[in-house]
Amino acid sequence: MDFSIEPSDAALRDRVRSFVEQKIIPYERDPRLTSHGPTDELRIELNALAREAGLLAPHVTSHFGGLGLSHVQRALVFEAAGYSTLGPIALHCAAPDEGNMHLLEIVADQRQKERFLRPLARADIRSCFAMTEPHPGAGSDPSQLATRADRDGDHFVISGNKWLITGADGAGFMIVMARAFDDAEELGPTMFLASMPNDAIKISRIIGSMDSSFTGAHAQVEFAGLRVHRDDVLGEIGEGLRYAQVRLAPARLTHCMRWLGAATRAHDIATEYATKRRAFGSTLIRHEGVGFMLADNEIELHMCRLAILDVAWRLDKGDPGRHESSMAKVFVSEALFRIADRCMQILGGLGVTHDTQVERIFREVRTFRIYDGPSEVHRWAIANRLARKQEAL
Amino acid sequence: MDFSIEPSDAALRDRVRSFVEQKIIPYERDPRLTSHGPTDELRIELNALAREAGLLAPHVTSHFGGLGLSHVQRALVFEAAGYSTLGPIALHCAAPDEGNMHLLEIVADQRQKERFLRPLARADIRSCFAMTEPHPGAGSDPSQLATRADRDGDHFVISGNKWLITGADGAGFMIVMARAFDDAEELGPTMFLASMPNDAIKISRIIGSMDSSFTGAHAQVEFAGLRVHRDDVLGEIGEGLRYAQVRLAPARLTHCMRWLGAATRAHDIATEYATKRRAFGSTLIRHEGVGFMLADNEIELHMCRLAILDVAWRLDKGDPGRHESSMAKVFVSEALFRIADRCMQILGGLGVTHDTQVERIFREVRTFRIYDGPSEVHRWAIANRLARKQEAL
Amino acid sequence: MDFSIEPSDAALRDRVRSFVEQKIIPYERDPRLTSHGPTDELRIELNALAREAGLLAPHVTSHFGGLGLSHVQRALVFEAAGYSTLGPIALHCAAPDEGNMHLLEIVADQRQKERFLRPLARADIRSCFAMTEPHPGAGSDPSQLATRADRDGDHFVISGNKWLITGADGAGFMIVMARAFDDAEELGPTMFLASMPNDAIKISRIIGSMDSSFTGAHAQVEFAGLRVHRDDVLGEIGEGLRYAQVRLAPARLTHCMRWLGAATRAHDIATEYATKRRAFGSTLIRHEGVGFMLADNEIELHMCRLAILDVAWRLDKGDPGRHESSMAKVFVSEALFRIADRCMQILGGLGVTHDTQVERIFREVRTFRIYDGPSEVHRWAIANRLARKQEAL
Amino acid sequence: MDFSIEPSDAALRDRVRSFVEQKIIPYERDPRLTSHGPTDELRIELNALAREAGLLAPHVTSHFGGLGLSHVQRALVFEAAGYSTLGPIALHCAAPDEGNMHLLEIVADQRQKERFLRPLARADIRSCFAMTEPHPGAGSDPSQLATRADRDGDHFVISGNKWLITGADGAGFMIVMARAFDDAEELGPTMFLASMPNDAIKISRIIGSMDSSFTGAHAQVEFAGLRVHRDDVLGEIGEGLRYAQVRLAPARLTHCMRWLGAATRAHDIATEYATKRRAFGSTLIRHEGVGFMLADNEIELHMCRLAILDVAWRLDKGDPGRHESSMAKVFVSEALFRIADRCMQILGGLGVTHDTQVERIFREVRTFRIYDGPSEVHRWAIANRLARKQEAL
Repeated sequence: MDFSIEPSDAALRDRVRSFVEQKIIPYERDPRLTSHGPTDELRIELNALAREAGLLAPHVTSHFGGLGLSHVQRALVFEAAGYSTLGPIALHCAAPDEGNMHLLEIVADQRQKERFLRPLARADIRSCFAMTEPHPGAGSDPSQLATRADRDGDHFVISGNKWLITGADGAGFMIVMARAFDDAEELGPTMFLASMPNDAIKISRIIGSMDSSFTGAHAQVEFAGLRVHRDDVLGEIGEGLRYAQVRLAPARLTHCMRWLGAATRAHDIATEYATKRRAFGSTLIRHEGVGFMLADNEIELHMCRLAILDVAWRLDKGDPGRHESSMAKVFVSEALFRIADRCMQILGGLGVTHDTQVERIFREVRTFRIYDGPSEVHRWAIANRLARKQEAL
Repeated sequence: MDFSIEPSDAALRDRVRSFVEQKIIPYERDPRLTSHGPTDELRIELNALAREAGLLAPHVTSHFGGLGLSHVQRALVFEAAGYSTLGPIALHCAAPDEGNMHLLEIVADQRQKERFLRPLARADIRSCFAMTEPHPGAGSDPSQLATRADRDGDHFVISGNKWLITGADGAGFMIVMARAFDDAEELGPTMFLASMPNDAIKISRIIGSMDSSFTGAHAQVEFAGLRVHRDDVLGEIGEGLRYAQVRLAPARLTHCMRWLGAATRAHDIATEYATKRRAFGSTLIRHEGVGFMLADNEIELHMCRLAILDVAWRLDKGDPGRHESSMAKVFVSEALFRIADRCMQILGGLGVTHDTQVERIFREVRTFRIYDGPSEVHRWAIANRLARKQEAL
Repeated sequence: MDFSIEPSDAALRDRVRSFVEQKIIPYERDPRLTSHGPTDELRIELNALAREAGLLAPHVTSHFGGLGLSHVQRALVFEAAGYSTLGPIALHCAAPDEGNMHLLEIVADQRQKERFLRPLARADIRSCFAMTEPHPGAGSDPSQLATRADRDGDHFVISGNKWLITGADGAGFMIVMARAFDDAEELGPTMFLASMPNDAIKISRIIGSMDSSFTGAHAQVEFAGLRVHRDDVLGEIGEGLRYAQVRLAPARLTHCMRWLGAATRAHDIATEYATKRRAFGSTLIRHEGVGFMLADNEIELHMCRLAILDVAWRLDKGDPGRHESSMAKVFVSEALFRIADRCMQILGGLGVTHDTQVERIFREVRTFRIYDGPSEVHRWAIANRLARKQEAL
Repeated sequence: MDFSIEPSDAALRDRVRSFVEQKIIPYERDPRLTSHGPTDELRIELNALAREAGLLAPHVTSHFGGLGLSHVQRALVFEAAGYSTLGPIALHCAAPDEGNMHLLEIVADQRQKERFLRPLARADIRSCFAMTEPHPGAGSDPSQLATRADRDGDHFVISGNKWLITGADGAGFMIVMARAFDDAEELGPTMFLASMPNDAIKISRIIGSMDSSFTGAHAQVEFAGLRVHRDDVLGEIGEGLRYAQVRLAPARLTHCMRWLGAATRAHDIATEYATKRRAFGSTLIRHEGVGFMLADNEIELHMCRLAILDVAWRLDKGDPGRHESSMAKVFVSEALFRIADRCMQILGGLGVTHDTQVERIFREVRTFRIYDGPSEVHRWAIANRLARKQEAL
């Protein structure tokens, strides 16, 4: 049992934190950070800074130009990056690209890696992941997957609609989840790689959303006879749901890491304000009504860090840690929201304005209780595992 | 003890609700409803609809063209209006105008009523209320009031800054709270009436904010030698804080009413969605994880309604109901937020998008835990009353 | 809309409160108040005091010797009685007798009323209500009812087990819920009246429990060929579940009333202590960490009172108020527990000792989240009503 | 970073768990486990079993006959012991003895160790720690310490009262905290060792309490001219508060460990019941309303374990970890209570009876939010550290 952090890892974390504070935070008031997220122009400018600092795509193996960080190292670095909501964009370790790179490294074949992963890892392009669908299609329940991929010789023809596809607008390629068919025979959920822009992938609209930190926002997408060659099937036909798990378990955890950084930022802003602002005879922090909220933040930030490191350590030793990963997702997403909510409350009127980053962080963090499986789906999964274990006794 | 509603009151409530559903909700996607709130053009168009329906300024006495509703009647009508965030704008019973009309009816002299209240009650103009100041000035603690009004013959010269002044941009007049001085002698916090636009009232900037339902948004304001004649002092010199209470106690309650309507809307949207959307083998509402959230909404909406009616009834019989008013403010603002939060969670990915009103309501309602005194200030006031009572035994 | 209380009702409430404070509270340290509740000897002594004060069985009609209070009046009087956990025992308006009297007044025939209700209303005897069964029998789900009543000529022969039967030990009669059969034909759940003590009703054991305020504690009961004449069927054969609702809806509400009184007591104790006890430089109540807890108590006690009065008013006008009754049960039982929990926390080490009534009230109130349908069953019922309403649109 | 457990440590933990399940749990229905806790007769019998199993006093160094466990090892072993509330009694690692042994090992001189620690470590005697006092003396705020120790030559004469002194009745010695004086000069809070039974230490009464797992219960104690020789001052004069911290920081953590075991037991009981018991068409665990509660238990038990191990690891490397220790105390004590509360709710009527251990665990765990510093004091301390850090910037 050893909770200590390698000095070299701590140094890297601190380097990332300094980079974010000095180089990235000044961009937080850049007009190219729109209500739909940073523009690609801004994103490219930030990527250049990270590249120059040797910090681009830290999670990617050195073969593809990254730092090859372990999951525990990612925990440290991604949290530091997340101290600004623009940090993960800059380091190119934001969703959905980060998860896509992870997935491609594990599942893609050599040709696919060269064609899709290499330019993505260099941040020459962005990518998107098209799984969720409008009602009544697949949402939390992937069994409702309605998009079809019908075999036509060496190709699959994909038809259907996707919804809330983060980063689709401007992406260089898309990973599409569709239910494959060979005539009447269903081959099962399958992942496909499709270059973009692509006439057969129509961005129907950009969906306005409470969050605004993803480049390319969230789009509704329509497939109009999209043809994908069998060589662009990602992994095996019919294994799409399994790969989704390969992608999701760590992707969920990296969301925890980045937003832990964001919540820490909000807490720092609230602490500084509460120490400076006076009301009713003392500084706010010396009022228990405020001090106790900050104490709860301290406690929950600490607990989130422990929960994340525990799962990261499991992933590093090859344990998929599905139970712990679900538990961490629920705990961290809910705790971060409480933290952001308290920070907003402490700031009072200032907290609901755009004058500090707290308002933005509050909105971003709220979505995390829904993204990557809402709390309710994870609670169900946790209870289900417990039930099966007990029923088997 | 009689909790029943007068049939004529119920009929008026239902008429307002129908008006909102049929005439106002269609405007919710109007582009003039910007991220800073509805434009004046839109506001004027909506006011015209309410005027036509005989529903404008329902809280104002008939002398000034309103319906002269009691507080209990307001509870019914304002909730119905709040079913759309545009409803109170249309009926001209939104903050800050509604509270300002109430204040002027009670405190203003005849001349002031004709000059300021009459056009305001007709919705010919809007108004604003300038009390809060940037750090280190007055926020929750009014004793930190920094804006000065120095007597100069028959005038007062006002200097200072105000912050988060809702509706200032485009307002026809402002009620200014300032600390009056006659040379070195302090005369105490005092309210002044000042016509707008006014060269001596500079809108320094419009403050970006999480909420977006107030016409004229929230502004930072700078006074540059604003001269106000002694005839435009509102009420007595030195009585500003007392008048603020006259305004705030009911204003706080009308916020409860309007936002109760908004939360009811969110709940209806969530209920409808949960009854239609299927996942994991049944509709969402038939999953206890979702059904229990809706049950909690039902419970808390009901409790909010009771809390509001109780205070309204007290106000109607002349009891200032300060303790109950504080309790209702804390309970209702916190309950409405939990309700909106659950609705967002139930809608999942859809909930964080602009595709339903839930996202907007979530943001609006969050601010209410801060506006009109954050929960912490009210809890302190409640505890303080209890302490003084017990200490006196 | 009128929330005011009739002066005569307020006077009766105050009289009960004085009676409890002066006559009953001194018995709270009587050794006959055992860990299984007050003994019958103590109960009889307390009943005599209430009889002398003209306060016995206030909910019973004057025909049977009571005060014939409406539900709203009960709300006032039962809360005042509940200020001591012994108060409802003294006034003979505690569970299960209070609910049984209510049921008999509505469902029993004349002969049954004279035989069972009249002595019960006079507190000459106690009674019990035998519905819940040990696993796998009926608990929250009455459809699992396993106790049988087989017709044998003019009699029914009852066999089975009951569990958690409050007040069974020492009761003068029992109302038994059993599934009636005529040979193979099931006649449905039916209620039977059986005198006690009775050789065919065996008290297998007294069940140790966290609460300790019911005379006769909670017992496990075994029926050994209990024969009940058809004249002692309560109401109609097969209507048992409907009568259970007739009994439960008001019984649930009277629990709310009595325990609201108990929580008020805990709050008063905590307020007094917090105003007297100093730590870290001031009295506890002047620490926001404590003051805010007391403020939350004030808020929730107020909300509980409103919730109860609303349902009582509905019951008085003949509206069964099932939705509101479920909502009140969930809200009140959970709020009262939070209140008691805060009081214990405020008292610190003193709070967990028997030196104040708070520890007892904490234990009593905890059980109410389970008794009369656990919160989960009510949330399910509330959601179910909402779902059916929405599905019907 | 390595969260893995040494195989030998895991083996010891499993051995303790088996010992508790097989040897100790059968005693949970022993009548000698009274409402004031286990009698000394029972305690001695259980100690004998642990001694025989080689598990007595595992935290004590081998010099005094223990296993010399590190803090991390204690985390594993104490949790396993806590699986029965009698487990820590049996292993002789329950409060207050465990903390006293720890304190004596660090602060006592050789003579004191031989005289007091050696027989205590062998469980030949028990001990108690007398710090808290009745109002208005020392409770959460030790600066209110009222007990005096006046120097009289080579002795100190102690006068005053102590309250809630756990284990005093039947203890072999007492550690007394008193304010030392040399005539008028105050020498500061000081610890004294006093053999018991002792005519000058009067047990005024045994205090009834909600918990019932400490041998010797909680007593009120009166000093009647207790003379302590200067050789029996523990450590230095005037250093009492510092030693209290030496004792409390780990003692607080060992409470977390033991009660984590108890909460795990409650969770196992609830899980088993929910998997067996049916209602409304399925087993309880397959109802989300129950399954989600169990999922929350899984999450919080996991988080508690991480919080404890983190602090234990810090203590092992010599870091006092005061901030983390406070955070763990608040988080764990509050989480364990929520867990126990959910277990009780899941069991329904069964949960409030003595038929399972859940009711006992619920009561025990509730006290932990108060013992060793109530949550409010720790939140204040956490906020205070944060404030001082920020103020110093």
